[in-house]
Amino acid sequence: MKNFEFYNPVRILFGKGTIAKISKHLPEGVPVLFVYGGGSIKKNGVYDQVVAALQSTEYYEYPGVMPNPVYEQLMPALDLIKEKKIGFILAVGGGSVIDGAKFLAAAACYEGDDPWDLLSKHAEVKAALPIGTVLTLPATGTEMNGNSVISRVSVNHKLAFGSSLVMPKFSVLDPDTTCTLPKNQIANGVIDAFIHVLEQYLTYPSKAEVQDRFAESLLLILTHTGSKVFSDPEPDYDTRANFMWAATNALNTSISMGVTSDWSTHTIGHELTALYGFDHAVSLAIVLPGVMTHLSEKRKDKLLQFGERIWGITSFDHKAAIAETIKYTEQFFRCLGVKTKLSEYGIGSEAIGKVVAQLSSHGATVLGGAGDVTIDDVEAILSTRLVP
Amino acid sequence: MKNFEFYNPVRILFGKGTIAKISKHLPEGVPVLFVYGGGSIKKNGVYDQVVAALQSTEYYEYPGVMPNPVYEQLMPALDLIKEKKIGFILAVGGGSVIDGAKFLAAAACYEGDDPWDLLSKHAEVKAALPIGTVLTLPATGTEMNGNSVISRVSVNHKLAFGSSLVMPKFSVLDPDTTCTLPKNQIANGVIDAFIHVLEQYLTYPSKAEVQDRFAESLLLILTHTGSKVFSDPEPDYDTRANFMWAATNALNTSISMGVTSDWSTHTIGHELTALYGFDHAVSLAIVLPGVMTHLSEKRKDKLLQFGERIWGITSFDHKAAIAETIKYTEQFFRCLGVKTKLSEYGIGSEAIGKVVAQLSSHGATVLGGAGDVTIDDVEAILSTRLVP
Repeated sequence: MKNFEFYNPVRILFGKGTIAKISKHLPEGVPVLFVYGGGSIKKNGVYDQVVAALQSTEYYEYPGVMPNPVYEQLMPALDLIKEKKIGFILAVGGGSVIDGAKFLAAAACYEGDDPWDLLSKHAEVKAALPIGTVLTLPATGTEMNGNSVISRVSVNHKLAFGSSLVMPKFSVLDPDTTCTLPKNQIANGVIDAFIHVLEQYLTYPSKAEVQDRFAESLLLILTHTGSKVFSDPEPDYDTRANFMWAATNALNTSISMGVTSDWSTHTIGHELTALYGFDHAVSLAIVLPGVMTHLSEKRKDKLLQFGERIWGITSFDHKAAIAETIKYTEQFFRCLGVKTKLSEYGIGSEAIGKVVAQLSSHGATVLGGAGDVTIDDVEAILSTRLVP
Repeated sequence: MKNFEFYNPVRILFGKGTIAKISKHLPEGVPVLFVYGGGSIKKNGVYDQVVAALQSTEYYEYPGVMPNPVYEQLMPALDLIKEKKIGFILAVGGGSVIDGAKFLAAAACYEGDDPWDLLSKHAEVKAALPIGTVLTLPATGTEMNGNSVISRVSVNHKLAFGSSLVMPKFSVLDPDTTCTLPKNQIANGVIDAFIHVLEQYLTYPSKAEVQDRFAESLLLILTHTGSKVFSDPEPDYDTRANFMWAATNALNTSISMGVTSDWSTHTIGHELTALYGFDHAVSLAIVLPGVMTHLSEKRKDKLLQFGERIWGITSFDHKAAIAETIKYTEQFFRCLGVKTKLSEYGIGSEAIGKVVAQLSSHGATVLGGAGDVTIDDVEAILSTRLVP
């Protein structure tokens, strides 16, 4: 096991009716910016619950945060933050709204000319407004970490930044907020969380048993309850609760401690989304089986462990076991209604050159934390996604 | 799954050589009280590493914290804290030293007459000095929670208190500090951590899959690596690292979220320790099989899940499966060199009345969080520990 530093001070308020507890955790006498997205929270009752919880608080609304949150849409909020002397940001929605709030929290305290420097130049986050969140879409795990991904549409860039200073002071996870989610968003959430776990697990043995078994626990829960949440027209409370808590644990950094993480699937997937507009999770479901196939010999040991402990696959023929493992994994995504090949989306071999060019233009030479995916490997990985 | 609030801001510095990082996490210009135990840290090099890390810090030593830390031995430190204007307590040792430091941290800020009120009268901890820890004995999990157990020998009481204010600001976990531990301390540590998990798991189904599977992960790791650490004369680094991290996760509160916890084994075990001087883990290894046996029908579902997932026991006859599960669990403790019956320690039926009297004198009527162990049940539980 490698050395590590673990620090996660996010307070989780989990369960039915916990939105009402927000007020107890807000700093007193401080104006709050209430940030949300396209308005689904006004249809499912979450908006009303938040407003009720804020009844004794001075607050201002900033709606309209977009999926894959956009720099240009967020920046006007900085004027409001300054004018109203905002001291706390409350993000209510899915990962995009929360990521947007993290950017605003750091941008409001940034002393340079343009807060985009935090992403493009990796400028240090020296201070940030405190934030809290109410999660309505289990998927990204951003509600319990210090990471954020922001897009700047004018230059076609999608970049990440991270700091413990933008970790939420609290996150409310009420499984009842997920009752009205459309099926495709649930499928995306399950796949997103599942692949988050695999990015931190499916590389090389790290002799880190707690992290391995916790990762496998989450994978098992996501296969069981994920499928149930998706296939059942009205999944029960506990199924939704288990899905929600598993998705949060998938990226609260605990399973990545002391192990070799990957993230090459995300790096390639981001380019597919930028080029073809795929949903984030869909891009991952396309790329991951390719990464597994192309690296099946190098990452043999961990692939076999994954196949045996998650899908129950054992064989004296390790090649056969790995092929079966990849097939089961791909089939899981397909059962959730997500196609896993570029060819199924009408995309041909021309995509490969475009993705490679995009990666090269961002200065990528080696992808992922394991150091075993080069730009040259991307062609082989994506080639496996073209077969009918 | 029940509603829950999770909050654990303890920073973990894990791995080889991490004691040297302490200075980075100490508040500047603040005198430190360096608390330790009987002096084993002077033999295994930990003392020297801590002193080296404190070379630019004003610090004072307070050695001699006893196993099952003792109020009477701790209280004189309060004068030193006041005199030297101590602003941070650094605890270096096992769970006793850390629990002792937590008591001092709260006692130094207590405004009533006698800080024992924090335990005997459940007086609220309104403030506490910040503490940090260097763990040298994986067992209790106190390095990543806000709990502490203190004994007052003059009145033969052993009581607990808890507050998020005494959670360590940081805890250093360097598996190399465990190289020189005596076998019986390792065995105690494995059993202690194993039973911590069971106290949070072996009650009633809570439909909390993350918590259940994380608990089962820790139990599996403790059976495998625990046995290996104990039986191998020189266990490798990763084995010691996995044991250490599993023991911490066993009681950092994550697996108890939203579930029905027990702790009746601990409550009864504490009285056995107070009466007969058992090591903490030994008292638990005696009591737990009795609790499992006496409650085997009520807690049938969870006992069967435990037996199947940890020991691989399945049977159409649930009584037989549970009997086998209890036998395997008891055998595990015995393989670690710990006897599991009162009779094996020369203690007879007279113990039962004494334990019941002690519990009654502390006002206990129902033991444990599941509400299914009354004072009357204690007699039946301990009776199973008298058979030869």
